[in-house]
Amino acid sequence: MQRAALLGIKKPFTEVIRANIGDAQAMGQQPITFLRQVMALCTYPNLLDSPSFPEDAKKRARRILQACGGNSLGSYSASQGVNCIREDVAAYISRRDGVPADPDNIYLTTGASDGITTILKILVSGGGKSRTGVMIPIPQYPLYSAVISELDAIQVNYYLDEENCWALNVNELRRAMQEARNHCDPKVLCIINPGNPTGQVQSRKCIEDVIHFAWEEKLFLLADEVYQDNVYSPDCRFHSFKKVLYEMGPEYSSNVELASFHSTSKGYMGECGYRGGYMEVINLHPEIKGQLVKLLSVRLCPPVSGQAAMDIVVNPPAPGEESFEQFRREKESVLGNLATKAKLTEDLFNEVPGIHCNPLQGAMYAFPRIFIPSKAVEAAQAHKMAPDMFYCMKLLEETGICVVPGSGFGQREGTYHFRMTILPPVEKLKTVLRKVKDFHIKFLEQYA
Amino acid sequence: MQRAALLGIKKPFTEVIRANIGDAQAMGQQPITFLRQVMALCTYPNLLDSPSFPEDAKKRARRILQACGGNSLGSYSASQGVNCIREDVAAYISRRDGVPADPDNIYLTTGASDGITTILKILVSGGGKSRTGVMIPIPQYPLYSAVISELDAIQVNYYLDEENCWALNVNELRRAMQEARNHCDPKVLCIINPGNPTGQVQSRKCIEDVIHFAWEEKLFLLADEVYQDNVYSPDCRFHSFKKVLYEMGPEYSSNVELASFHSTSKGYMGECGYRGGYMEVINLHPEIKGQLVKLLSVRLCPPVSGQAAMDIVVNPPAPGEESFEQFRREKESVLGNLATKAKLTEDLFNEVPGIHCNPLQGAMYAFPRIFIPSKAVEAAQAHKMAPDMFYCMKLLEETGICVVPGSGFGQREGTYHFRMTILPPVEKLKTVLRKVKDFHIKFLEQYA
Repeated sequence: MQRAALLGIKKPFTEVIRANIGDAQAMGQQPITFLRQVMALCTYPNLLDSPSFPEDAKKRARRILQACGGNSLGSYSASQGVNCIREDVAAYISRRDGVPADPDNIYLTTGASDGITTILKILVSGGGKSRTGVMIPIPQYPLYSAVISELDAIQVNYYLDEENCWALNVNELRRAMQEARNHCDPKVLCIINPGNPTGQVQSRKCIEDVIHFAWEEKLFLLADEVYQDNVYSPDCRFHSFKKVLYEMGPEYSSNVELASFHSTSKGYMGECGYRGGYMEVINLHPEIKGQLVKLLSVRLCPPVSGQAAMDIVVNPPAPGEESFEQFRREKESVLGNLATKAKLTEDLFNEVPGIHCNPLQGAMYAFPRIFIPSKAVEAAQAHKMAPDMFYCMKLLEETGICVVPGSGFGQREGTYHFRMTILPPVEKLKTVLRKVKDFHIKFLEQYA
Repeated sequence: MQRAALLGIKKPFTEVIRANIGDAQAMGQQPITFLRQVMALCTYPNLLDSPSFPEDAKKRARRILQACGGNSLGSYSASQGVNCIREDVAAYISRRDGVPADPDNIYLTTGASDGITTILKILVSGGGKSRTGVMIPIPQYPLYSAVISELDAIQVNYYLDEENCWALNVNELRRAMQEARNHCDPKVLCIINPGNPTGQVQSRKCIEDVIHFAWEEKLFLLADEVYQDNVYSPDCRFHSFKKVLYEMGPEYSSNVELASFHSTSKGYMGECGYRGGYMEVINLHPEIKGQLVKLLSVRLCPPVSGQAAMDIVVNPPAPGEESFEQFRREKESVLGNLATKAKLTEDLFNEVPGIHCNPLQGAMYAFPRIFIPSKAVEAAQAHKMAPDMFYCMKLLEETGICVVPGSGFGQREGTYHFRMTILPPVEKLKTVLRKVKDFHIKFLEQYA
């Protein structure tokens, strides 16, 4: 807002709508009751005697507390996380993928960001002759570029195919790899599926191709799968890298190194504030594993309350349990709403001349491509801003809608985008989309 | 336990007593009721209608929730932390020190470890000609050495004076500084007060000397004050670096850069699992502050539940409030117990021939010096272990008592120590001390 104020324009809106961050509950999404009941019981075990809490929630809480030091969320857990929660995560993965998962390979984390940062730190610090290259999609979630830069590694960009609904093309991986080999040692390949900011859901075939490529090139695969529950297109399904890896047979499943990430923050729970997450690591070299354990133990442990939240994400009420019906209703309501808003956003953006928006197959963002006239590009340069930053600042100034310019995520030279969440309630989202439309048309006229 | 098993000795005990980690609730300390009540109310706001929760707890919970996005602990907070909690921290510091504190200088963190790691990362990445030196006490809490090594900075040891109850002598700081100047650029001075693992409480005079030294040498002061509520010796008082800095006058208070740290994990609350903490930074260079904000924003935010716990640590029930009496009783019971155990531990250790233990003025550890006969030193070498590691492994093997060898913290060459918490309940602690005594006497005989 400070930079906006610098532009010296009056503010013709009454409310700032923060469509810039994937924070569902901040936009009014209600927590899943069961999760909060279990968390309250764990927090204040006196409530275990209260008749106002369902028995299945009490059962979950007792199980978690029994695995905590002193039966309390206030004790440190093992650095890797509470045992029974890691077991629940492994059981969840086994159910999801139909292939076994080992609790020993599960590490609970302080949100997915923490897991990604930690594993990248270890993979990059190998200390070879040339610097380590880390391949990331463009557009990407900026955690990746920030961590790579912090670690003094080399960011190797591969471009997602906007014309093909942001698909990942393995030939583009090859191109990026070959170029990178001239100046660094590419060791890690990061994938975000479903995509952030791009919202695509990778096909099974594409995941196979990527795994084969990683196997060929001996790359460590890093699969950011925090949006695994956020799939809206009826033609799309989430396939985990772990599952596909195992289904490709032992040559792959016993050789390709993989870390995959999940979180309490997204899905239908939207519990960002608890900073819960896990990573599963497969085929980790024993030496790397040793370093990982050492690094984690210095950091003591992830927040135990976030671990407990993660437990409920992977172990929600099952059919037949007392809380199941309410849980099912709440879950379907959140996901149904998101699916409606995904379609609505795509449709309304595509009605606007000069905006093109790929289908929002998953995740919780639109990443429309916007046409910025050359006069606006010049005006932006005069303000020493990227053109899409200039656009987003004007949008904020004139409508109060806060979105993130595409340049924050990376995009093909000469193209412009912004990322907008689909998290505002339906009616508010309609208002947002109408305001963006009016703004965009006015913007095109102004800089024609 | 695995290494112990390698020694191939049978285990003549029925229980492992983990006196190796400062985890109060894991050793049976009960949470402070008020803190957990507020946390439960924040977690599951339906409880705000329940008559079984006191009004002052509800008031606190409402205040916290109103400051959270969507009135929920499940939303991200600002990276620096929830505004009203930073205000409460600032108010606490002002009350504690009698000098003003600015909420803008408060950063909520994922425990103190996270704050220390973050600020060190920024201070070390200055990028001068020679590598950055970070002065740390020996013995130290191993987070410091680990982070310094991770950041590729230089660890500059200054030795605490065991003969003088682990006091910090400014002449020793000077010596360490002069030596370090030959091979690095010392920029940061870390102090742990009350001391971990050493349990001393710094005198006001000593703090003044240290501040004057930092002012002279333009060092960034890093004051780890997580044990500020854990002072047991009637002759000792906790003085914060911030307070002394301000009382020394504007020449100091407007120039010396200081970051101080506090946590939910220690004190009388002992809420380790929530990973709550804060740091206050004074006189931070605007450029450094900019880097700090950038680094924090990549990490999203500290767990909001931990932030809420921190709020109660700094803003407990006040006299006249409904919950005050119970809170006062619980607090006094925890701290009274710790004081009893501190004295008991000192006294019983000093009855053992070959063990010398300084007074446990504060914190929650004993760090006794142990005599290890030369035959035992040789035996340790044969096992490729540090002598005190050998001692601690034998202690574990023979008694089930788990303590940490002094070599993990650093100690003067040729001296040996271990760190033991005073957290087991009184009767169990007596048993522990008796067992250590018997073990030590036997050990001396065995290796005479």
